[in-house]
Amino acid sequence: MDHRDSGFFADQASLEMEDFVLLDYCFESVIEPAAAAAHLCQEQSTAQWQRVGVDEDLRERFGAKVIDLAVTGVFDQPSHPVPSIETAKTYQCRVRIAHPHRNFGPRIPNFLTAALGEGAFYSPGIAAIKLMDVEFPQSFLRHFEGPKFGVQGLRDMLQVYDRPIFFGVVKPNIGLSPDDFAELAYQSWLGGLDIAKDDEMLSDVPWSPLRERAEKAGKARLKAEEITGERKIYLANITDEVDRLIHLHDIAVERGANALMVNGMTTGLSAVRMLRKHTRVPLVAHFDFIAPLTHISYFGVHSKVMTKLQRLAGFDVIIFPGFGARMKTPDEDVSSSVQECLKPWGHIKRVLPVPAGSQWAASTGMLYERLKTVDFGIVPGRAVFAHPMGPKGGAASLRQGWEAAVSGQSLEVYAQNHKELQLAIESNS
Amino acid sequence: MDHRDSGFFADQASLEMEDFVLLDYCFESVIEPAAAAAHLCQEQSTAQWQRVGVDEDLRERFGAKVIDLAVTGVFDQPSHPVPSIETAKTYQCRVRIAHPHRNFGPRIPNFLTAALGEGAFYSPGIAAIKLMDVEFPQSFLRHFEGPKFGVQGLRDMLQVYDRPIFFGVVKPNIGLSPDDFAELAYQSWLGGLDIAKDDEMLSDVPWSPLRERAEKAGKARLKAEEITGERKIYLANITDEVDRLIHLHDIAVERGANALMVNGMTTGLSAVRMLRKHTRVPLVAHFDFIAPLTHISYFGVHSKVMTKLQRLAGFDVIIFPGFGARMKTPDEDVSSSVQECLKPWGHIKRVLPVPAGSQWAASTGMLYERLKTVDFGIVPGRAVFAHPMGPKGGAASLRQGWEAAVSGQSLEVYAQNHKELQLAIESNS
Repeated sequence: MDHRDSGFFADQASLEMEDFVLLDYCFESVIEPAAAAAHLCQEQSTAQWQRVGVDEDLRERFGAKVIDLAVTGVFDQPSHPVPSIETAKTYQCRVRIAHPHRNFGPRIPNFLTAALGEGAFYSPGIAAIKLMDVEFPQSFLRHFEGPKFGVQGLRDMLQVYDRPIFFGVVKPNIGLSPDDFAELAYQSWLGGLDIAKDDEMLSDVPWSPLRERAEKAGKARLKAEEITGERKIYLANITDEVDRLIHLHDIAVERGANALMVNGMTTGLSAVRMLRKHTRVPLVAHFDFIAPLTHISYFGVHSKVMTKLQRLAGFDVIIFPGFGARMKTPDEDVSSSVQECLKPWGHIKRVLPVPAGSQWAASTGMLYERLKTVDFGIVPGRAVFAHPMGPKGGAASLRQGWEAAVSGQSLEVYAQNHKELQLAIESNS
Repeated sequence: MDHRDSGFFADQASLEMEDFVLLDYCFESVIEPAAAAAHLCQEQSTAQWQRVGVDEDLRERFGAKVIDLAVTGVFDQPSHPVPSIETAKTYQCRVRIAHPHRNFGPRIPNFLTAALGEGAFYSPGIAAIKLMDVEFPQSFLRHFEGPKFGVQGLRDMLQVYDRPIFFGVVKPNIGLSPDDFAELAYQSWLGGLDIAKDDEMLSDVPWSPLRERAEKAGKARLKAEEITGERKIYLANITDEVDRLIHLHDIAVERGANALMVNGMTTGLSAVRMLRKHTRVPLVAHFDFIAPLTHISYFGVHSKVMTKLQRLAGFDVIIFPGFGARMKTPDEDVSSSVQECLKPWGHIKRVLPVPAGSQWAASTGMLYERLKTVDFGIVPGRAVFAHPMGPKGGAASLRQGWEAAVSGQSLEVYAQNHKELQLAIESNS
């Protein structure tokens, strides 16, 4: 059988592309690549395409279709030992599949089912597979609201247009009373943070009820705004069971939180989309529970896809693992997530990328040099809150680090007249 | 520094165990194992445990603690190449961590953040990590409702107590009109299916609105019950955006669906817990989007943990990858998921395991022999709906397969007087 005739192949030119989402997979096959690609389409769409005794073929309208297939390598065995698959000649392939979105509609869970469900991971002959990219046509995209604020909305809130945004995670991250928390946040705002935030582990807990924390941090924020003459944000983490998200939004926002964080994959991206319809403040994504999906080079989902889906769900800011040894992420993966945040995407607003991990005063300059844009944030924790001069000094050292970068001076030279920066350099070496 | 003194180690005997969830990880470390384990606790709990200038130590009350650590192997390099980690002496370790649940409370997203968030996957020196098991104390578990029906409730609905449950996925899985769908389901019930179900890809779509499908399949179900004298279930897939789940529950149940399926990881387990509070019928889990978390032996999450969390969220039936080459899952992983469904677990009801994948008439006998219980289901698709005699014949062949097993006859001998089984054997060989 020639698999090109199987009903699961098509010329892209012959398709009405507005009807399809494009799925770009890498896979490793121990069977003939075209047969494996046909199976992959069959299993993720119309696994059985006719009834017994009925002359019909549902593939034309409902079948996913291979529109491009390339063998990118041949190996002696798959990267991933599969119980049922003996060591065998293995084809490493790249396939582009056009999947008719009428099969699932403009809904995140149903899209995930199609692209990353049983069809993708249990297709015959395929030992390993990774979803590398996805493209949605306008006919699909138009059903999504996307971010409510985006980069521009966040900048308008802060009235900051010409530099990166300084986030900081209040530390100690868990265990503080709301009073102590608010005091640390206050000091960090005075020092120069734009956004003091809850750690991703800090939620609505009896020893720090969100109601009380938001009230106290909210008041401290207003005081800091008055003293500094700058706009400030208290970013509260409302990650919780999905039937509490709207309620927690209201509690936090009414008391003074003016941005909210959700660990999107632990609550589910669909819950974020729900929250987006309701929210009055920017939504910030944290990356918990994404690593097990993305970290294996030949298996799972590419991190850029997860970034794209978070933007689609309606986040205004996406925190993800950044550059550097600490975050165990290839540089090109970080760069592609930055691009997914910032590139034009129809009516879906640009979102602020925050490539995170062990950041300090030098991070803004290094990121600016690499990204060639000021549209990003940094989100240190200990560099602010374990600074020898405390959070006010720590936050000041971040601002000084950026001033050095803008002035064209080295960090060391600029530090000669800036004690907070000098201490940051000493702490970090 | 002796890491045993770091504040992240404890004797289990010294802890009030009701205050802790137990997390059992495998990890591969390129640094000294005790240092790696201490980092792992620190990163997942109180990453910075004192304020600058304050004499305090938040670790005692909020720190996760190593209660057992063993080196299980030493290798030349990690299984998983990490950009920042050179090939280096690698310790394969097993660690048991007691994490104080006051840090996150009895909530699924916050538990996932603690156990599978940034702390687990970005801990210094750890190249690969997998969460192998988790145990919840009664003080945590009592906040969860768990399954509403469980095995017993489902059996009471069907009035079937002495044999496995016959599910079948109506195929063609997508593309059928509600009328055609209902007719196939009807035939399969007449033939002997207990439960005719929507495919995981079939949701509330314009070409088969759930409202209409549930109405027609619901009527067909009543007719089949009248004719066969048996109770039947129409299992509708309501997987959708989370803010539609309750609405779709009501639409489907009011019209005649008497069980509902949700692809739990694509909607999020927290959404399932929400639905559980509302549901009037049993909830059935499909395993889409779990494979990328579980399939790598040294990375991610063990499939038994995902099964346990689905039971905790309130599913009454859990469909998961079963035995055999098709499902690419080690036998022991399948067995441990079966156990997670059926073992006593405080007030949390037992749930029906459905180890799935390419099943047919022989599957019940083989599973019974292996599992030594009738408390399981099978869920074929093509064995019923592509059977040469159509779905009625296909469903009959399943019942005959079980009759053969009970009678002690071989399938082949029993098939001599049972044409449907005979044809199933021929189709399957």
